Amino acid sequence: MGVTLGHNQYGKAETRVVRVYRDSDPHELVDYNVSVALSGDFADIHLTGDNAKCLTTDATKNTVNAFCKEYPDAVRQPESLGLALARHFVEDVEPVSRARITVEMYPWVRLNHAGSPHPHAFARRGGYVRTASVAVENGRAWVVSGVRDLTVLKTTDSEFWGYLQERYTTLQPTRDRIMATSVRSQWWHTDLDTDWAKSYEAALATMTDSFAGHHSLALQQTMYAMGGAMIAAQPEIGEVRFSMPNKHHFVIDLSPFGLDNPNEVFHADDRPYGLIEGTIHRDDAGDPGLAFDPGQGW
Amino acid sequence: MGVTLGHNQYGKAETRVVRVYRDSDPHELVDYNVSVALSGDFADIHLTGDNAKCLTTDATKNTVNAFCKEYPDAVRQPESLGLALARHFVEDVEPVSRARITVEMYPWVRLNHAGSPHPHAFARRGGYVRTASVAVENGRAWVVSGVRDLTVLKTTDSEFWGYLQERYTTLQPTRDRIMATSVRSQWWHTDLDTDWAKSYEAALATMTDSFAGHHSLALQQTMYAMGGAMIAAQPEIGEVRFSMPNKHHFVIDLSPFGLDNPNEVFHADDRPYGLIEGTIHRDDAGDPGLAFDPGQGW
Amino acid sequence: MGVTLGHNQYGKAETRVVRVYRDSDPHELVDYNVSVALSGDFADIHLTGDNAKCLTTDATKNTVNAFCKEYPDAVRQPESLGLALARHFVEDVEPVSRARITVEMYPWVRLNHAGSPHPHAFARRGGYVRTASVAVENGRAWVVSGVRDLTVLKTTDSEFWGYLQERYTTLQPTRDRIMATSVRSQWWHTDLDTDWAKSYEAALATMTDSFAGHHSLALQQTMYAMGGAMIAAQPEIGEVRFSMPNKHHFVIDLSPFGLDNPNEVFHADDRPYGLIEGTIHRDDAGDPGLAFDPGQGW
Amino acid sequence: MGVTLGHNQYGKAETRVVRVYRDSDPHELVDYNVSVALSGDFADIHLTGDNAKCLTTDATKNTVNAFCKEYPDAVRQPESLGLALARHFVEDVEPVSRARITVEMYPWVRLNHAGSPHPHAFARRGGYVRTASVAVENGRAWVVSGVRDLTVLKTTDSEFWGYLQERYTTLQPTRDRIMATSVRSQWWHTDLDTDWAKSYEAALATMTDSFAGHHSLALQQTMYAMGGAMIAAQPEIGEVRFSMPNKHHFVIDLSPFGLDNPNEVFHADDRPYGLIEGTIHRDDAGDPGLAFDPGQGW
Repeated sequence: MGVTLGHNQYGKAETRVVRVYRDSDPHELVDYNVSVALSGDFADIHLTGDNAKCLTTDATKNTVNAFCKEYPDAVRQPESLGLALARHFVEDVEPVSRARITVEMYPWVRLNHAGSPHPHAFARRGGYVRTASVAVENGRAWVVSGVRDLTVLKTTDSEFWGYLQERYTTLQPTRDRIMATSVRSQWWHTDLDTDWAKSYEAALATMTDSFAGHHSLALQQTMYAMGGAMIAAQPEIGEVRFSMPNKHHFVIDLSPFGLDNPNEVFHADDRPYGLIEGTIHRDDAGDPGLAFDPGQGW
Repeated sequence: MGVTLGHNQYGKAETRVVRVYRDSDPHELVDYNVSVALSGDFADIHLTGDNAKCLTTDATKNTVNAFCKEYPDAVRQPESLGLALARHFVEDVEPVSRARITVEMYPWVRLNHAGSPHPHAFARRGGYVRTASVAVENGRAWVVSGVRDLTVLKTTDSEFWGYLQERYTTLQPTRDRIMATSVRSQWWHTDLDTDWAKSYEAALATMTDSFAGHHSLALQQTMYAMGGAMIAAQPEIGEVRFSMPNKHHFVIDLSPFGLDNPNEVFHADDRPYGLIEGTIHRDDAGDPGLAFDPGQGW
Repeated sequence: MGVTLGHNQYGKAETRVVRVYRDSDPHELVDYNVSVALSGDFADIHLTGDNAKCLTTDATKNTVNAFCKEYPDAVRQPESLGLALARHFVEDVEPVSRARITVEMYPWVRLNHAGSPHPHAFARRGGYVRTASVAVENGRAWVVSGVRDLTVLKTTDSEFWGYLQERYTTLQPTRDRIMATSVRSQWWHTDLDTDWAKSYEAALATMTDSFAGHHSLALQQTMYAMGGAMIAAQPEIGEVRFSMPNKHHFVIDLSPFGLDNPNEVFHADDRPYGLIEGTIHRDDAGDPGLAFDPGQGW
Repeated sequence: MGVTLGHNQYGKAETRVVRVYRDSDPHELVDYNVSVALSGDFADIHLTGDNAKCLTTDATKNTVNAFCKEYPDAVRQPESLGLALARHFVEDVEPVSRARITVEMYPWVRLNHAGSPHPHAFARRGGYVRTASVAVENGRAWVVSGVRDLTVLKTTDSEFWGYLQERYTTLQPTRDRIMATSVRSQWWHTDLDTDWAKSYEAALATMTDSFAGHHSLALQQTMYAMGGAMIAAQPEIGEVRFSMPNKHHFVIDLSPFGLDNPNEVFHADDRPYGLIEGTIHRDDAGDPGLAFDPGQGW
């Protein structure tokens, strides 16, 4: 019996770097969590411990930090930062044939002081984390933008009924429920000549606008509408993927206390939760290739 | 040798309740995590397992939920919700002599749709959690408002030098550093006849305005300025307490790569962190009594 | 421009079920977190909100719970629980063509009382979480066992030197370092007629024995040795995958205090960390198919 | 109106230090998370930003690290490490009048290799975190040992009935339920001349033995029995405090599926949970003083 090394990748994960732009007034900043995963001619490291072709994970961290100084314009957006880094690793480091850069970006807002925006004081915005994931291989690049922890809720305009009945089905149908989810989404850009900041704001606005306005018969239907709207509004988006937990809000039975509860008081439950995942694809976009491929199946 | 039961308290913790106001247009909602801790004539439960005086934790949860229907006005603010609940437990449940209600409130913002605010779609705001803590005993009530996870940062206007030197001191002084913290604060109201919503917005605005405008020689100094400003601006605030981690942002040495780094690229470190805690008291406010007492010393 | 629904899946995630075997003396228990993901003829739900073919996520939760009563033997191991559930959904629920069941299992140990193991008191063991992931489609089943949060450390027998040098490489080589990681691993069984309990204990023992005994020149090399040993020891294992953070322990420079530090005092750092991922495949095992495919690329 | 600085404290929190004892064979290690909080003559820092009396938090971190080299024997137990550090800060650093050292200790177990314990390979044990908290002021020291995240469960021998009935009470009484909790406990030593390792093992054994053997009518009763047994067994323990969430395991109603469920299948719920907190005091132990005082009321 023989054993073979299959797909492998490595790099420094979660380099937490903050870049301040202080040559301008007011100051600006970007706040990133950058992870690097490299694949290539790395079998010797595994088989014999020969590290001659091993770019240290420490060096990948140094590269992230140095790029923040060397390429200040690319660093302003997570997609362009990811492109710069991924191309560097594949083009400049001999054994590397594929690089994936995953970026989390934490948005900040400017604080007020004495009635005006302050030039160098900020608060972390919260509300969501912006993400980007870039892969480069064989001279081709895939860029994916995304969001996580964007929690949205509708107090009405959501129904759920008419579903399949079988032995284990006991759920009561409803014509009016709270629908809430914490959106995790990624979308693939088929055009790399994109204004990443504008594209991102537009995608997020379309996504939430579509959620707000949709009269929902199922969370799946709302998800599909959100993705469809994003693709319709932005020609550079070729595919949208969602992973949306159905954050259940159960109407509490107050009748033991002599109280009615016409959808006013809800228990926000933790677990279990429905988990709805799906892909919406632009017909002419072609195959997404490595766009959404995490490399290792976790 | 004998053994005595000392301070004890119990109740249901972390009841996650969402209250929707749907009789108005547009809909409104409040989103709470409510914890109840009761003290009183409960020795028998501990000593013999006689539960005759035990209000079940399940009943305290039911009470939270039912109050959301019964007292819709009180429920709109965490302070008034806490007051209503704490007074109920002490006044209406015979064995209870002290009640503490701790509330976390998760702010939401209205989503836009087709260019206008939507009447019943929301996004969780993030950025901070609003808190309230209310204690009632012997006919007296203490109300504390608070915030946690409010992360603020200044890119300049922060110095740190001139400190004590001893054997283990190696830190280099600086005239310009990033100062960042995740504010956890609580403030005690000496006047219960307060508009909680307005008071809260004012306190948060003063706190962040003060942080933004302060030229800092030490995080302690900034903390003291923040608390002092809050007390100066709002006569109903008798004491402010802070727990502020110094979220270190270290300037990265890029010289090995031939790059200078004039406070532009920082490593946002996780641990360890400085932890600065302090109390700012209005001279004429009297003793805060149970205001900040968690009951059990954890 | 048209839009197409691509891969999609849904189900109840994180059903937290505890099954007590109390008809025996002493009692036994299993503690699970079960997630269900179904794919199949579900386009109508997305496109029109027609739920006629929608098995509710609530029903999938009910199924998990009911199976714990109906199939007590299958429920004793996460792999056989996953197989029973996945086969049920595909075979008994018309629109379902693929089911993936993901299980986390929390091990418990029996407590002592008066010098003997107690028949019905337990402590959660900690140390690691056991996992299983089962997929069924087209009459075929894939079973994967796994572990996460298994933190292991060697105080010596780990070197790292001789690596690639380029512009961003500043790391100093070492002939003696701490090597620590939190093992996340999954392994695919090519034989479903397996004693899951014995197989699991054997795999974990081989994995940790191999880690302990390996003189490491790189974490990749140790990872490969671990996977290779597991495959060599157990013919039912066709492929092993790892995701192993290099939990850095940095030697602290105590020379400013006049102290040497010959690898005795270390800073256990949080972030960033090296992340080493790899696949070790038995040559005659064939393609793992859906074994490691999460369905949706997150 | 005037404003006064009240209680304040500061220091470096969460210094993550690992100490390897490698001059012996086999190797040994301790793994700590150490937090320092100092009080004293620090008003100037707050009022004017004058840091002349400010021991930097960085220096407190350095002190923790250096002590791991300088005092290898004291470092072997968290209580003696805390004592050494707290005494140093109060006695050797002029402005410091009170020091509190809080330590988390993560237990490790030795791995096996080739059938024998390996001399320098370990796995993190999990199951619980050991804690210690030491305060020093005015020449007196208080030492508290503790545990957190010790999750224990009984599948029977737990009843709950006969409780108070009022408007919001709907819970059904039970003569047989699962009782589970995640123990957080701290106990104060009135004798500092204690073998900390032996004392700790004894306390944990008594605590879990007592939990296992107790026939419970209320979680409060079991808690009181646990604390009483600890004090009875160890004369150096003067007071025990507990914070114990009632981790609810609800019997699932399987009757809709034609199945009975005689306490076999349970839903392990997340929130809300009962939270039971209490103090058990040895009558002749005197006042615990600063033993459990966190300094700042969070």
